[in-house]
Parts: sequence; C-alpha cells; structure tokens
Amino acid sequence: MAQSDNRTAAIVGGGVIGGGWAARFALMGWDVRIFDPDPEAERKISEVLAGAERALPMLYDAPMPTRGQITFHSDLAEAVNGVAYIQESVPERLDLKHKVFAQIQDACPEDAVLASSTSGFKPSELQDGALRPGQIVVAHPFNPVYLLPLAELVPGEGGDPATTERARQILREIGMYPLHVRAEIDAHIADRFLEAVWREALWLVKDGIATTEEIDDAIRYGFGLRWAQMGLFETYRIAGGEAGMKHFLEQFGPCLTWPWTKLMDVPEYNDALVDLIAGQSDDQSGHMSIRELERLRDNNLVAMMRALKGQGAAAGKLILDHETDLRGPLQDDVPLVTIRRTVPVDWTDVNGHMNEGRYGQVFSDASEELMTHVGADRDYIAAGNSYFTAETNIKYLAETLAAESFYVETRVLLGEGKKLRLWHEMKRASDDEILATCDQFLLHVSLETRKSCPPLPHVAEAVERLAAAHSA
Amino acid sequence: MAQSDNRTAAIVGGGVIGGGWAARFALMGWDVRIFDPDPEAERKISEVLAGAERALPMLYDAPMPTRGQITFHSDLAEAVNGVAYIQESVPERLDLKHKVFAQIQDACPEDAVLASSTSGFKPSELQDGALRPGQIVVAHPFNPVYLLPLAELVPGEGGDPATTERARQILREIGMYPLHVRAEIDAHIADRFLEAVWREALWLVKDGIATTEEIDDAIRYGFGLRWAQMGLFETYRIAGGEAGMKHFLEQFGPCLTWPWTKLMDVPEYNDALVDLIAGQSDDQSGHMSIRELERLRDNNLVAMMRALKGQGAAAGKLILDHETDLRGPLQDDVPLVTIRRTVPVDWTDVNGHMNEGRYGQVFSDASEELMTHVGADRDYIAAGNSYFTAETNIKYLAETLAAESFYVETRVLLGEGKKLRLWHEMKRASDDEILATCDQFLLHVSLETRKSCPPLPHVAEAVERLAAAHSA
Repeated sequence: MAQSDNRTAAIVGGGVIGGGWAARFALMGWDVRIFDPDPEAERKISEVLAGAERALPMLYDAPMPTRGQITFHSDLAEAVNGVAYIQESVPERLDLKHKVFAQIQDACPEDAVLASSTSGFKPSELQDGALRPGQIVVAHPFNPVYLLPLAELVPGEGGDPATTERARQILREIGMYPLHVRAEIDAHIADRFLEAVWREALWLVKDGIATTEEIDDAIRYGFGLRWAQMGLFETYRIAGGEAGMKHFLEQFGPCLTWPWTKLMDVPEYNDALVDLIAGQSDDQSGHMSIRELERLRDNNLVAMMRALKGQGAAAGKLILDHETDLRGPLQDDVPLVTIRRTVPVDWTDVNGHMNEGRYGQVFSDASEELMTHVGADRDYIAAGNSYFTAETNIKYLAETLAAESFYVETRVLLGEGKKLRLWHEMKRASDDEILATCDQFLLHVSLETRKSCPPLPHVAEAVERLAAAHSA
Repeated sequence: MAQSDNRTAAIVGGGVIGGGWAARFALMGWDVRIFDPDPEAERKISEVLAGAERALPMLYDAPMPTRGQITFHSDLAEAVNGVAYIQESVPERLDLKHKVFAQIQDACPEDAVLASSTSGFKPSELQDGALRPGQIVVAHPFNPVYLLPLAELVPGEGGDPATTERARQILREIGMYPLHVRAEIDAHIADRFLEAVWREALWLVKDGIATTEEIDDAIRYGFGLRWAQMGLFETYRIAGGEAGMKHFLEQFGPCLTWPWTKLMDVPEYNDALVDLIAGQSDDQSGHMSIRELERLRDNNLVAMMRALKGQGAAAGKLILDHETDLRGPLQDDVPLVTIRRTVPVDWTDVNGHMNEGRYGQVFSDASEELMTHVGADRDYIAAGNSYFTAETNIKYLAETLAAESFYVETRVLLGEGKKLRLWHEMKRASDDEILATCDQFLLHVSLETRKSCPPLPHVAEAVERLAAAHSA
C-alpha cells in the first residue's frame, strides 16, 4: 500500500492503551514520540512494549519492518511537532481532552491525523470548540492494542474526509482494521455490546445465578468461539439453515418480549426490520451457501480450538484432557502402530495437501508415542530426561489431504545407550499406501545440562527389548 | 474416566441440534438411536453427520474410539428402550415437549438421563406433571454441537441429583463441558447474553448506525477474540491491571447510568455488588498475576489469530493481507536469505523448544520463498505448476525457543530440468549459531497430472542461474 514519507507518530497519554499504540507503531517501523506527565509512564509503557515485542512479531510469517525509535518527551509541543499521526489516550474527562487537543493543535501540523482512543465520547463532543475541529477523529482500539486489529474510526459529521482517509491508511499500515462508524453514537458500536453483556452479567452475579467464572466459561466454551470468527449475524444466518435468514428472524422475533434478559428496552419488531436485516445479511454472506458457511465455520473452529489446545487454554484445555482419556496404551505389535488419526484442516498448505513440515510433526508425535511406550513419558520428562531428535531423513511418497485417515508404523532399528534410531512408515488408512517414510535418529538428553546421557535403566531395557524384537 | 457399560443414546427430534448430538455420541463410540417423525429427518441428519465426521476427529491428536452404530426408528418406545441417555430436541412448544416426555418415560429405563436441548424453558416447566420429574434435566448445547464443548446442565430444584451426576459424566465422556447452572432462570446463562447483544444489534441496524456486516466485524476483529479464550470477567481483570478488579469496577460503575446501550434496566451498583464481583474474580483468577494473565491472553490470541490465518478467515485474513504488504522481494545475495522471523508460541512443544516438525515447516517456507524468487509464485501455482518436496534430510543442531529470532540461508545445489536441490542453514539471529541444516530435494510437478514435469522456461532459467551463482 502507499506509504507516506513521514512515518512519525506521537502518543499522548501512556498507560496500557497508549503503550499498546506506541508498540504497534514502533514495531511496524514508525518512529514514536511519547508524551505523558505521569512519572511512572516510562516504566509502565516499557512493560507494555516488552509484551508487544514478544507477541506481535509472532503473528507474522514475513520479515518485520525495522523497528522505529521510541522517545519520551516532557514537552507536548515538541512531541507533536511535525508528526503525521497523533493518538490521544488521556483519561476519559472531556475538559481534560479539550485542553490537551488545544495544546496539540497549537503545535502539530495541520494535516496530521489527531485521533482519540475515547470509548465514551462522540467525535462532535471532542471537536466542540477546537481550533481545527475537522482534524479530530475517534480511533477507538481494543486491548491489547498491539494484537487486536479493530479500531473504530468515527469522524462524525464534523470530521474532515481527507483526515479520515489518512487515518484509515495509517491504521491499515500498522496492521489494524479501521471500521468506519458512519453515524456517531455513545460508545460507538462494539462497546455497546460489551455494555449490554456487562449489564446482564451484573444481574446474574447480583442475583446469585452464576459466578464470574461460570459466566466466563459460558462464553469461552460456546458462543465466544463462534464470535471470534464470524460474529453475530453470520452465525445466525447458518442457524437459519436452508430456510434462510428470514426464517431465523421469524423464529426468534417473539423472544424479544420474553424475559430472556433483564434488559427489556427493545425495538419494535416488524416486517421492515426483518427485511432490512435479511437484506443486509444477503449482501454480507449471500455469495456463500449455508453448506459453505458451515464448512468455513467448522474449519475456523477446529483451527482455533487446536490453537488453544497448543496453549493448554480454554476450550483447548478441555480437548487436551479428553484426549488423555481417549488415549490407550499402544499394542505391543511388530511394527508398533504409534499413530492413528486424521489430517486436521490446519495442516494443509497452499498446494491443498498436508504441508511438508507436518510430516515431521507426525513422525515427532510417533516417536513421542514410542517414548511413552518405553517409559519415557511426561513424568520422565518432567523429572529432567528426554530424547531429542538429532537427524531425520523423510521421503515424501504420496500426497494426503485434510480429513484423510492415516496411521504410522514404527520400528526400533537401534537402541543402544543414549542412541535411538527409529524407522517410521506413514500409511493411508483406506488403502495402506505408504505416504512417507522417516529414518529418525534420537539422542537421550538430560534436560538440565541439555547434553546427551544414557537413559534410566527401565527405559534402556524397554528400548533394547523393542530393538531385539523389531530386528527379528 | 469411569464409563458405564451401557453406551446407547436416544436422540428424539433431529434437525441441526439433534443431528449434532447424534454425531457427537456416535463419533465418541456410543450407539445412537434416532427418532424423528419428519420424513426428511434421515437426509437432514446425514448432512450434519457428514460435517461432523469430517470436523470432530480433527480436534483430536489421539486415536478416536470405534464409531458407534446410528439407527433410525419410527417407534419412540423402541428408540428409548434400554438406553442410558435420551436427548430431546423437538420444537420449542411446551405442550409438545410434555407429550413427548410422557411417551418417553413410559418406555425408557428409570435410571436413564432424560435431557432437553431447550434454550427457552426452565426445567421446572419441563418437569411439571411428568411421571418421574426428577429424571428430566436441561442440557442446552451450542451449534455446532459436535464441535463446541458447552452444555448448560440445569436440573432445577426438581432434578434428581443422581441423574444430574450421570448426565454430567456422560457429557464429559463425549467431550463436552457440562456447566452446572445452579439456579434455574429463563434462557439459562449464555443465551441471556446472546439475547442482550441481539437486542442492542437490532437497535443499531434499525437506527442505521451499522449494518449486519459492520456489526460482525466489530465483534470478530476485537472482543470476540478475547471472549473465545477468557470470557468477560477475566478479560476485565486484566484491564484493571495492577490496580486490581475493584479499580476496574469503580472506573466503569458510572457508565451504567449512561446511554452506552439502549438497554437501560440496570442493577443498583453498590459496594456489596463490587465486593461480590471482585471476590469472585479473585477466586477465579487470583492465582495468577496480571502479567501472567496478560502473557496467557497474548499467547492465546496469537495462536488463535495464526489459526485463523491458516484458514484465510476473519482476523487471520487481515494479517495475511498485511503480511503481503510487508513482504518484499529477496535480496539476490549468495547465499539467499529466504526467511527472517521469530518463533511463534504455537511452534513449541512439551520440551519447551521449537517442535521438530516446525523445522520442516521453516525449510518448506524457505523453499517457497525461493520458488517465488525464481518465478514459481502463487500465480504460477494457480496456473497448475509447482515444486513438491520429495526428500529432506534435517540435522537438529541447537534448540530454539518461542520469540527467538532466526533467519535461513538457502543455496541452490542443483537446478536441472525438473530436479531442484536446496541446502538450507537456519541460524539464530542473535549470535549466528546454526540451529539446523536441511538438504532438500524437490521435483517440479504438474498440479493437474500430479506427476513430475519440467518447469516453464523462465523458472528453469532462473533456477539454473542461481545454481551457477551458488556453486561458485
């Protein structure tokens, strides 16, 4: 995308939000000037920066831009002098914001974007009485600003279109999604939902129906996962199924008058509203059939829940625990069948087949199953011992696709002292065709010294027993 | 976990919800009997089953149980005879549900769980007038039932504790999270939030503030991602920061009286309510510091957004597009630096270091960068040509951890006709230590025939030029 030469931003007001903005700008190659009179500001922002420096680059599989310079300024005029973009994140008091805007506009370029992080104030309230009202827009971010892409961009009627367009370009350039809020309204859009849920949640806690933890579980094990990928209306479009969005709307219309929440100030539900929503939903998602939307939803949910499983968190933790229940000991056959599973949708790549790296993971998993089988299990690892792979030779013989079932047969070629050599054959379940083979050489290591050492006797014995059986 | 010998369930009422239950039970090894008088039931359920059979096993990295039998029954008494669990998902009409429960209880075992999928009715309403009221509980699932783990388990005051406990065990056994709703209330817990958001969303659409698509974007690019992993209160606990949950509550208390949503029926906000919430939040999350919670949140968000990126969906699509902007052409040095990045948190394993499979992915990515460099880019692949990896030999020389920066140097060892052989060295950015090497052999293929063939002339030429330069 087109980039302006001036890539310097001023962050006015630090804290978690200001620090998040600073981190995002700097990590995307912008020089950042920070103004915050709080003597603790530099420490607080440094902590946000440390988190951001670790997390944000992880999102990208491309080289990151050269990091910009971050400087702290005790003079606001100096901080905003000559910059292209100013983000105000001072406390939510209108008189304070007006005072800060006046000082900023005295010193900043006339064509700089002057954006406010306010969640509560409308742009017209911010613009009121300003030197150049049109320069001021709302760009409302979501914590953590350095990871979540949404920024509600609200110019209001008083916002200058050219400034709004520059704001949009700059927000895109730092990896955000500027959602243009066309009509100004209290709390913009997203926070209105947050506030509605918050109010209902307060009732539930107050009335003793649910605790904070039960409420969080009700969200993160259910609709939270749906909303993370499709939001509200596209999810309901799927619920309407083949009968369509109108059918869904007709089914749930009557509930508006029922006490399904304590919040009873509802709009009149008539044909005009149904047609409006159904029509907008068609515009949004009508290019996909319900089956296609279901497939997309399922792929997204599987991929996200697997991602959470990798972190041992939320719904992923539930699957991890359940998986432990499902996992039985390996049958002591020759060869050992170490893996029996399907290819998940997050393992395929641009060619439409399982990515070559995932073969390595399959064989890594196969050796981990074998390790468990010989007693080098999670407890053994927790006690400070493990096998590390030193070398693999993988031959890719046939393709495999998402949802295909396969299994891995594993033979111990060598099991002597700290050395372990395995031969894996990955086969398609439907026809036993060999998909890939792996010659894998592992070394037993101490996790303390990170150096090789012999396995404990019970593991050594089991490995030797298998090597003897498999050579026969 | 303990499993009963009787692993047969009856699903009464098909459709999307009943079909989802049937699929989950069958895929977890239960025999399933389905009763639904709709002549279309078998077709509709088969479609749900097909989706579930593809998606559910993908969640698991363990072998799945042997699939149970699914049978369709035209006689309700036959369907529920001798089963351990019955799930009712007929239309939301209380008279119909009462009639169905009466027929079921005439024929089913007295110790079977009789659970209803109702989202609207309270258990007391369902139990009213039943033969054995205590046998009836609510087990309210979320679509797609075969993927989302949440089931709100509501026995009400009339529910038999032993039945509730059996329901809980069975729901866990099929991979769900039974959230015990202690006090019955209209719409249970989660749907009350859905209804509150729905009502606010109707206002926004009706008043022309936002379209359905803008609302979905406001959710899925922002708080939807937060909620998918932590829910509401733990997220706000982090927002409170070092000052704590009470500080957060005090800050946002006044907003309750502001028009931040159209839904103005709010509870009285007093010290008792603040103490109740802050105390529950301490019980829930007090074992972790704010820094630890932030780290967990960031890891989860990174992993989920990367998962969505793999699907080209929602927030992941935004990162994908942004990444395209960040990616520049490779410098034509010898060796080529093909990769420059950090290790993301979803690449590490039980040993705490980058999983061996991910090395394969790094080298796969390196060869993809090289392919782009020689003109075998996405358009070339879309037109039906690509390189497939035939063999890799990877040596693992040193460990690397999440967030570490590294780069890959790539040399073309051989580039003749359809053959391409690459040598990759992966090095730690901080000290240039070699982490791993890869000797990679690729074959050029036609994506139509899936057989090897020579590359197009411009690619062949570029490969030969590199091979000559790199052998020098």
